[in-house]
Amino acid sequence: MRVAALAGGTGAAKLLRGLAASLDSSALSVVVNTGDDAEVWGLHVSPDLDSVMYALAGVLDAGRGWGRADEAFRCLSAMAVYGAPTWFGLGDRDLATHLVRTRALHEGRTLSAVTADLAHALGVASRILPMSDEAVRTTIRTPDGRLGFQEYFVRDKCQVEVVGVDYDGAERARPAPGVLEAIRDADLVVVCPSNPVTSVGPILAVPGVAEALGATRASVVGVSPIVGGAAVSGPAGALLRARGLPVSPLGVARAYAPWLRALLIAPEDAACAPELAALGVRAVVTDVMMPDREREAALGRAVLAAR
Amino acid sequence: MRVAALAGGTGAAKLLRGLAASLDSSALSVVVNTGDDAEVWGLHVSPDLDSVMYALAGVLDAGRGWGRADEAFRCLSAMAVYGAPTWFGLGDRDLATHLVRTRALHEGRTLSAVTADLAHALGVASRILPMSDEAVRTTIRTPDGRLGFQEYFVRDKCQVEVVGVDYDGAERARPAPGVLEAIRDADLVVVCPSNPVTSVGPILAVPGVAEALGATRASVVGVSPIVGGAAVSGPAGALLRARGLPVSPLGVARAYAPWLRALLIAPEDAACAPELAALGVRAVVTDVMMPDREREAALGRAVLAAR
Repeated sequence: MRVAALAGGTGAAKLLRGLAASLDSSALSVVVNTGDDAEVWGLHVSPDLDSVMYALAGVLDAGRGWGRADEAFRCLSAMAVYGAPTWFGLGDRDLATHLVRTRALHEGRTLSAVTADLAHALGVASRILPMSDEAVRTTIRTPDGRLGFQEYFVRDKCQVEVVGVDYDGAERARPAPGVLEAIRDADLVVVCPSNPVTSVGPILAVPGVAEALGATRASVVGVSPIVGGAAVSGPAGALLRARGLPVSPLGVARAYAPWLRALLIAPEDAACAPELAALGVRAVVTDVMMPDREREAALGRAVLAAR
Repeated sequence: MRVAALAGGTGAAKLLRGLAASLDSSALSVVVNTGDDAEVWGLHVSPDLDSVMYALAGVLDAGRGWGRADEAFRCLSAMAVYGAPTWFGLGDRDLATHLVRTRALHEGRTLSAVTADLAHALGVASRILPMSDEAVRTTIRTPDGRLGFQEYFVRDKCQVEVVGVDYDGAERARPAPGVLEAIRDADLVVVCPSNPVTSVGPILAVPGVAEALGATRASVVGVSPIVGGAAVSGPAGALLRARGLPVSPLGVARAYAPWLRALLIAPEDAACAPELAALGVRAVVTDVMMPDREREAALGRAVLAAR
């Protein structure tokens, strides 16, 4: 069975690890959000690509949920002495990824090509595909102006009012090589429990992706990142509200209509099932929390079974 | 007393620390070789600027003689997994210097401006001046072709035959702001015990520097990096030979004629004194070895006294 997944960062990384426990790794293709890529200290940082890559390589830090395990921050300390911004915490091992990527991009290689090289070097057999090789930048509109996603998410810790979200550059971006084919040729497309607005939203904003999801013969199954009226982690609640969507599985389903076929939701959201059905989305009530590897694997099996 | 020094890497770093022990730091200007600058992992690395800066900031690693104290190499290990070259050992703290420098240069700032910022942030009161803001690249001619200086020095550990040395770009380079003024306005110019061919040679190859040394009212005092027929460290012997110069204080003096006034030489080289005198160079026989801070300071005092 060939599986294609649409993925953001932390929640996606966990579910992908869970799916990989039940799948031949090489059967998995992951289309990853690059809308929150950022330049840090002159380096091209791709947080979601790296969380997915590190998770599938078994080197993701378990406590933080981002960056590498067995990490130190000596360079960061030295950068602070030089007055460089340190709110984006690049670790010493993690820096290698950004250095290799930045240099390759400066040399004219594509993000998808260098991503494939990095993943291969880390022993990842699954395909990790940036949604596009062109720059798409998720920008948060606030009453005081526009913020880059990492400024909003990491620097300001989501403590500002959101009035809208833009995907700068999306209309001119093309899907990276392999993205549309992965969706077209899959038996199952999984929408990971990522933020529908700022993680999956940028992927859907790349011309051709939503059309491929509508046209694929695969079953499209999502996992709700909203449980009991709030996001499991991150600012998905505020961002759904800013989009005029309810902070519930229903809001998630509306973001993914008309191509979502099934949505895994938590028992406390079971009452949403009829409204989901009215949108053409089958509700699968199950445990969607992933506090450890066992429950990641269990949710992975539930997703595969929901096909 | 205002002092200007011409400096390469390790030996210069030690003598400068010794001089700083007897001087008001702000009275010291150091003109530093940038001929062995290199691009490593896409970063602009200036080994001699950094050795001088770290030494004067008190953070130079004592054992290695280059890079920062209390250093680790986690990024380097991660780069090895990605197949990146690791023969040039950039440490995790040290990386901050190269990241800040590289970004500033990409933004169009000059090497001298970013060097001043870095030194200021590390609390260095002396002026550290790259010899030029333009690229000069010391290149080693071998029977099998040309090598960048770091390829010759670090990667190949000087184990190749040298048939010549070029300073690529020197003829078009201009002295960095402050270089000629530092030499002109000094009471004493110190030529550090650095390699005359690949450390001081590139500085002298920048148009205007040799003329400034000839015209300065300062006394110009050198310290021989050659003791008893061999370099104290590094490949100065082979490089003097490749230039057709004797591997002795006499070879050093010939490289610095006609503006060198005095040369500090080791007791075992005292017999060179008459030949040095014939070149117009006064020999000062003294202990020129610097195995510890006390002897660095003692040599610093001897240099100041030789004026």
